[in-house]
Parts: sequence; structure tokens; C-alpha cells
Amino acid sequence: MESIATINELRAKLRAARREIEKTKLESTVGFMPTLGYMHEGHMSLIRQARRECDIVVVSIFVNPLQFGQNEDFDKYPRNTERDLQLAAEAGADFVFVPSVKEMYPTPIKTSVVVKQITDVLCGASRPGHFEGVATVVSKLFQIVQPDRAYFGMKDAQQVAVIEQFTTDLNMPVHIVRCETLREPDGLAMSSRNVYLNEEERKQALVLSESLGKVAGWVAEQGMTMERLERNIRVTIEAASLARIDYVEIRTYPGLDAVTSMDQWNGSEPILVALAVKFGSTRLIDNRIFFS
Amino acid sequence: MESIATINELRAKLRAARREIEKTKLESTVGFMPTLGYMHEGHMSLIRQARRECDIVVVSIFVNPLQFGQNEDFDKYPRNTERDLQLAAEAGADFVFVPSVKEMYPTPIKTSVVVKQITDVLCGASRPGHFEGVATVVSKLFQIVQPDRAYFGMKDAQQVAVIEQFTTDLNMPVHIVRCETLREPDGLAMSSRNVYLNEEERKQALVLSESLGKVAGWVAEQGMTMERLERNIRVTIEAASLARIDYVEIRTYPGLDAVTSMDQWNGSEPILVALAVKFGSTRLIDNRIFFS
Repeated sequence: MESIATINELRAKLRAARREIEKTKLESTVGFMPTLGYMHEGHMSLIRQARRECDIVVVSIFVNPLQFGQNEDFDKYPRNTERDLQLAAEAGADFVFVPSVKEMYPTPIKTSVVVKQITDVLCGASRPGHFEGVATVVSKLFQIVQPDRAYFGMKDAQQVAVIEQFTTDLNMPVHIVRCETLREPDGLAMSSRNVYLNEEERKQALVLSESLGKVAGWVAEQGMTMERLERNIRVTIEAASLARIDYVEIRTYPGLDAVTSMDQWNGSEPILVALAVKFGSTRLIDNRIFFS
Repeated sequence: MESIATINELRAKLRAARREIEKTKLESTVGFMPTLGYMHEGHMSLIRQARRECDIVVVSIFVNPLQFGQNEDFDKYPRNTERDLQLAAEAGADFVFVPSVKEMYPTPIKTSVVVKQITDVLCGASRPGHFEGVATVVSKLFQIVQPDRAYFGMKDAQQVAVIEQFTTDLNMPVHIVRCETLREPDGLAMSSRNVYLNEEERKQALVLSESLGKVAGWVAEQGMTMERLERNIRVTIEAASLARIDYVEIRTYPGLDAVTSMDQWNGSEPILVALAVKFGSTRLIDNRIFFS
């Protein structure tokens, strides 16, 4: 595995690697997984999937300042590149792209990739500018890596919807692969931000996955309404004394339209139940998608 | 030459054409020129240049609704696809991509490529949303065609600056080739919109190129100031009784910063003198770039 810091070197290496493969196959496939680093088993499982499905596997590690708000955790976002490189190698990556901020933004950037509507809700409402930063940096990385397939975890379901939207709208020749959220044995969705939690917060953080686990049962109850369903989720979360709810939302997926009736729940569109909850200064998200 | 209406067919044909060339060369190059059609000698000269410089030449003809304002000339924009195909073939195009609006926008588009600052001035100020439409459709076309080189005429100098900006900012692997404005024998910049002019308007429209032709002489005059230079241009244009000035602006190029002093004129950055003038309902633009 090679760790590469510049765009030019990465492009040259990928061109050579594709050419090598095309000596024996008609087409080569590049699988790509952009990350913020500080990898956990969730990242590893995506890299392994890319390894199984593609000829060449590229992982990027870049904590993108553009997608952090002014009062967010850009500076203290956990970093451990040496360990990340080891984990990426173990999981089967061929190239890890580790650019500096200067390499990605050599001059002040004037361009952004803006996705409307579906970025106004959920985390888009709580984190203004976040998805513009995500869409812009992922567009840049796609242009740099030119992947055939790109892998994203469904813990960030709205992010996946946004990426699917702009790649489709802009005709980017990349297939977005939705990958299941990996969880700790007790159910907590894996996240680099979990390291921020103290012992008591970590224990209470289970209410996210627990409440999502109860949704199917509630929906099956006679006379259930959307209001009651949402209240049930809120009450379950608020049973944790340290939990402060940012949002509990029920929306179609990936269109992210509001769901207001049980008829809609049982309609043809998949339904997303999405949660964002703060424990101290740590904001956790989790979700589940239901198919009727 | 082949005329192609769908994205899938174009991609397949380009893949095959590249592969054919790569049997005898290490790399193939695709040259691309997006147009709104209704071609004139200006377009032809760009296609010829692409023909000289690239293995495969692609031209697109698409009147993009996204880049026309509500009160602009989308519906009456001149179209003549049959003649365009003939001209493109004569000039040496290999493929002409002629998509329908439905092919380019199969579902309502939620994504746009937004370039800040340099789109707030000149035509961006007169035509709100225009450059967002241009940047978005050109991004789409670049993703579809995946050109190595793309050719744009400098009559639309701001458009070239915008396209250079977003391709650089988003790391698109395409080289933007600036091509000189082609002019009628009497100096009028070639434009598809020139057909809108009646005989008298066509005669008076010469004031655009005439006033630009005088700029170098005025700048050489003792004690010239930016205010006087701009006034000289305005007075020259307004000598044409039918001319209504939209803007006369002097800016750096391609940064499009305001130029306020002759020191700046003689500085290291190229200077753009840009004009937009209406004759009746026809809006013409022209410009000239000066290097110190």
C-alpha cells in the first residue's frame, strides 16, 4: 500500500495501475472511500467491500475545514494518521490519499457544489453550510480519483442522499454504494466521535439505537399515528438524563420529504427515521430505514 | 461524423474511439466544444483548432434553459440543427452531441455549481442566475464527455473566467483553451444573436468594436485617468443613436477585480475592457484584453 500526499502523484499512480490491469482485462475499476480518518471497524468494513468489488482501492483521509461550522470540532476532530494507514493496509487499500489543506485548497476556493431542498432539513438545518462543504470536497475528490464506485456508510444517510443527488444531477460517472452502518456489540453506531463520550455518556448513548429498534413494534400497534410514533421515540431518548435531542425526524428516503401519515409510512417510498442527540458537547446521529 | 442524442450512446462511442486510438498511441485526447448551436465562423474556427490539437473532437449543441433568465430569449434563441451538423462536419468534428432537455434534465435538478465573486459583476450582474446555469451545464457536459481539452471563445471572457475557476477549484482534469474572438470583416464580434439586428442596428453595432479599438490610444494619452477612459468609451458608444449601454467596465482578468487607477492598468495583471450594449431588444457583448 502506498500513502500519497499530492494530486499529481495520485493521478499518475492511478493511471499506471489502471493501465497495468487493462493489460489483462478490458476495463479496470477503481473503488474509492473518502474519510475524515480516525478509522474504526466501520471504515474497515467499507474498504474490505471495495477490495472485494474493485481492482484498485483508494482511501482518502482529509479533515475538510469546509464542512465544519465555526463552532464545530474541526480543530479537535480526532486524528491518528499513522494508525489509519495501518488499518487501511490491513483492510486491503492500495492507495491512501492524505493531502494537506493547502494541496486541496491552494487558493481561496470560489466554487461550491450546492444541493437544494434535501440539505435544508435534518443535519442540514442544524449545521448550515455542512453539506455544501461535503458536496464540494467529495466532488473534488471524485475528480481527482475518478472512481467507478464510491463507498459511503448509511449512518450518514442524509450525506448519502446528497452525494447520490449531485452525482446524478451532474452526470458524474460514479456508482454510489450504500453500506450498512456498523455497530458496537451493544448497538451504538460506530463513529469517530464516540471517543469524545465519557463513561456515563457512552452508556446513555445506547438510547439512540434502542429507540430505533422499537420503531417497527410501535408502527405495528393499532391506531398508531406519526405524532405518537415521534413522541414515543422522544420519550425513550429523554429517559436518558444526559440526552439533549437535536432532532427526531421521520422522512422519505432519499427524497427527505416530511412523512405526516401512517398511509405514507406504508406507501412505496422507503422511510427514514433519523436522530441527532447531544451528550455534553458530543453530537451523535443514528438512523434506520424502513421498507414497506 | 456522428450525431448522437443520448448520454449512454455518446459515452460508449467515446470509449470505443479512445480505445481504438490507444492501440497505436499511449494516450488519446478528446477535444470538446459546448455550443448553443446556430453556428457561425467563430464556432467553426474553434472546432478546427480542436481538430488540429486532439485525436477525437466532440461538439455539443444544447440550448440550456437553466442559463436563460425569465425575460430572456430562450424560446426565440435561433436554432438550425441540420445546418449546424453540416458545419461541424466540415470543420472536422467526430461526434456531435445533440441531447434533448429531457436527456439533460430527466428529473428536476437540485444541484448547482456556484461560482462566487466573479459572477457578481458584468453579465452576472445583468443576468442573475446566468452563470450558475452555465457552470452547472458545462460541469454536466464535462462529466459526460470527459474531455482533455475544452475550447471557449473569448467573446464571452467572463464565461471563460468562470469555467476556468470552477474547473480549477473542483480539480476537473480538463484544460480550458482560450480562443480569440472571431470578427466580421468590419469588426463586429461574431455572435448567433447578430441575426436579431435589423439593418440600421447592424450598422450602429460597430461602435462596440470601434470603441475597443480606440482604448490603447486613449490609454497612451498624457494624464489619462480611468474615469476619462470609461467616459471616452461611453461617449463613443452613445454616438450611435440606437445604442443603450448595459455596462462599460474595466476589470482585471481573470480575477475581475475593479480597476481604479492607471497604475493598476500598467500593473502585472491583464486588464479586461468589457462592453454590453443593447440595440432594440438585442443585447450584444464585446471585450478586449490588454497586457501591460
